[in-house]
Amino acid sequence: MDNTTRIEKVQAQLRRKKLDALIISEPHNRRYLCGYSAMDHDIGESSGILLVPARTNPILLTDFRYQIQAEQEAGEIKVMLYPKGLLALLKTVLPDMGVQKLAFESHYTLHSVAGEMEETFKKLNISLHPLTDLVEEMRIVKDEEEISKLRKSVLLNEAVFEEVYQTITPGQTEIEIALAIENAMRKKGAEAPSFETIVATGKRSALPHSVPGNVAIKKNKALMIDMGLVLDGYCSDMTRTFVPKKATKKYLKIHRLVRKAQLAATEAIHAGVSASSIDKIARTIISDAGYGKQFGHALGHGVGLAVHENPRLSSKNRKHLRAGMIVTVEPGIYLPDWGGVRLENMVVVREDGCEVLNKNTTWLDI
Amino acid sequence: MDNTTRIEKVQAQLRRKKLDALIISEPHNRRYLCGYSAMDHDIGESSGILLVPARTNPILLTDFRYQIQAEQEAGEIKVMLYPKGLLALLKTVLPDMGVQKLAFESHYTLHSVAGEMEETFKKLNISLHPLTDLVEEMRIVKDEEEISKLRKSVLLNEAVFEEVYQTITPGQTEIEIALAIENAMRKKGAEAPSFETIVATGKRSALPHSVPGNVAIKKNKALMIDMGLVLDGYCSDMTRTFVPKKATKKYLKIHRLVRKAQLAATEAIHAGVSASSIDKIARTIISDAGYGKQFGHALGHGVGLAVHENPRLSSKNRKHLRAGMIVTVEPGIYLPDWGGVRLENMVVVREDGCEVLNKNTTWLDI
Repeated sequence: MDNTTRIEKVQAQLRRKKLDALIISEPHNRRYLCGYSAMDHDIGESSGILLVPARTNPILLTDFRYQIQAEQEAGEIKVMLYPKGLLALLKTVLPDMGVQKLAFESHYTLHSVAGEMEETFKKLNISLHPLTDLVEEMRIVKDEEEISKLRKSVLLNEAVFEEVYQTITPGQTEIEIALAIENAMRKKGAEAPSFETIVATGKRSALPHSVPGNVAIKKNKALMIDMGLVLDGYCSDMTRTFVPKKATKKYLKIHRLVRKAQLAATEAIHAGVSASSIDKIARTIISDAGYGKQFGHALGHGVGLAVHENPRLSSKNRKHLRAGMIVTVEPGIYLPDWGGVRLENMVVVREDGCEVLNKNTTWLDI
Repeated sequence: MDNTTRIEKVQAQLRRKKLDALIISEPHNRRYLCGYSAMDHDIGESSGILLVPARTNPILLTDFRYQIQAEQEAGEIKVMLYPKGLLALLKTVLPDMGVQKLAFESHYTLHSVAGEMEETFKKLNISLHPLTDLVEEMRIVKDEEEISKLRKSVLLNEAVFEEVYQTITPGQTEIEIALAIENAMRKKGAEAPSFETIVATGKRSALPHSVPGNVAIKKNKALMIDMGLVLDGYCSDMTRTFVPKKATKKYLKIHRLVRKAQLAATEAIHAGVSASSIDKIARTIISDAGYGKQFGHALGHGVGLAVHENPRLSSKNRKHLRAGMIVTVEPGIYLPDWGGVRLENMVVVREDGCEVLNKNTTWLDI
């Protein structure tokens, strides 16, 4: 699906909702619709918005720092600069376009900014209408071009993992390994890590959200690595857990249980099945073995331009999976005084099953 | 000023405004008030909030991923977990505390989240009150303990710069140099870079916001490095521009002009002078030499727990500087077909002048 088609879909929805235009501020949505790849330093430091009128061509509004990048990336879409700020420009652009009902992304607009907009536009008889997840809903199902990009992102991530895995030696610190991973990512052409790399040894691997520390890894302790990168805009996300030298019996038992849950859930994925039923398959295997309470998070999440997006594979999500969705399958067991094991792959939902994007099998079936 | 004093100051303001409690969601404010140092992955993935009642002790609310860190860092402040989400916990905690008027940080709350809160709390007869910059205003003036931390951050940043500067060789790429800088930061003990390191060669240095690319640096072309790190929570931010081998006459002329503007502005800083007048001093020197339009940004910004905070040294900010404020002084000249020069130091405003925190003089006075 090219950008023009995507924008036409947004416009059709605006017309259906009787809205005159939509401000796209969420960076992944902006990139999805027009190719402009700048991210925001943070939500308060925007690198621009895409203004999509219901009936005429969209415009990309940004400031002079991003002008060259915007013009190069946004193709035929007109770029306008706001030397005096976004609101000042909108005050002239919107009435020129005849906009009276303006929608904005409520989930990526600060409350204070919405307040300022409301006050400014009231004087121009423009009303504001919050919208949520309109473009995110479009992004959930990937087309084959996107799947191909996600596949490349996964494979590059695995190449980085394999290169660094070969050099891992007891005595190295978590931080050293995390740095080696992030350096290899950039040297191999990734735009950036898709999230802060997790390298956690021993008991520290029992924290699903561990931050790498100045802690030496040990030859007989679990080492959990959760890593991902961005390639051509698309994210990868993979977890491997292993023992640098010799695994204990207990480690092997827990690891095999996690892998069993992962395989069973993967096996069950296909278009039409509910997300919660897939979560349940993995959770039941882990619970039946007595570790239900030690699997404290959802089984997986969607991955695309954002590393965490819909659909969630969780007990709460009753929605059905659709062909072209891409999700992680990542069961885990975390024992506070011992450590944790998590194994994570990415899969594409297909009509009759699923395609596992990961090819790396290091320390999966042990 | 210890955390208890800071919280008491917030509470006094809440009582003055007749508000019962304030939700602190902005990560730097959270850290400033209670020491909890987790950052948010992004605004939609919060690592917790600090609830400050007007009259009783504050509580830190977070989820199980951050429990250990929160308990270690927040000292005597009680930590509560929200296994079912923040709103679910607030629904029981706020009525127990007798909260009827609840304030929140409008500048760090999503419009959609504020909407959900409003709907949820209405049923409990709790009204919502947006506040902006209450804690940010407290953070503008630094005490000597904070200044000491900022000084250490600046000096470590300079040590990293000097180490990498010694190894810079024509033929290296921008990305390689940026990686060397960020690696050295972490090896020397920084928490993280305070922003994405800028390394820009030749014409690319004419973009104030350049992202390092796979571009080899050249021996006779300008090389701009803008870098900063976080140490013990506090940020540094420094720019140096230089020529790896031999500078042209034109380069020397522009560089000396930028330095002249920097020195004159620095000379004029002291408590009581307006921010805009300092910007004007640098801008006049550059304009008089014919480059006014090529200095397209403000002269400087505050630095503290955040790398960009108030006060801004800009033509629009008429406010007076106060002793203990810390600002960058960073004039620049950017010529699209040639390149740019920016020089940036950090200074502390003192009663009778200012203290330049930077000691590194590489390529300043040439």
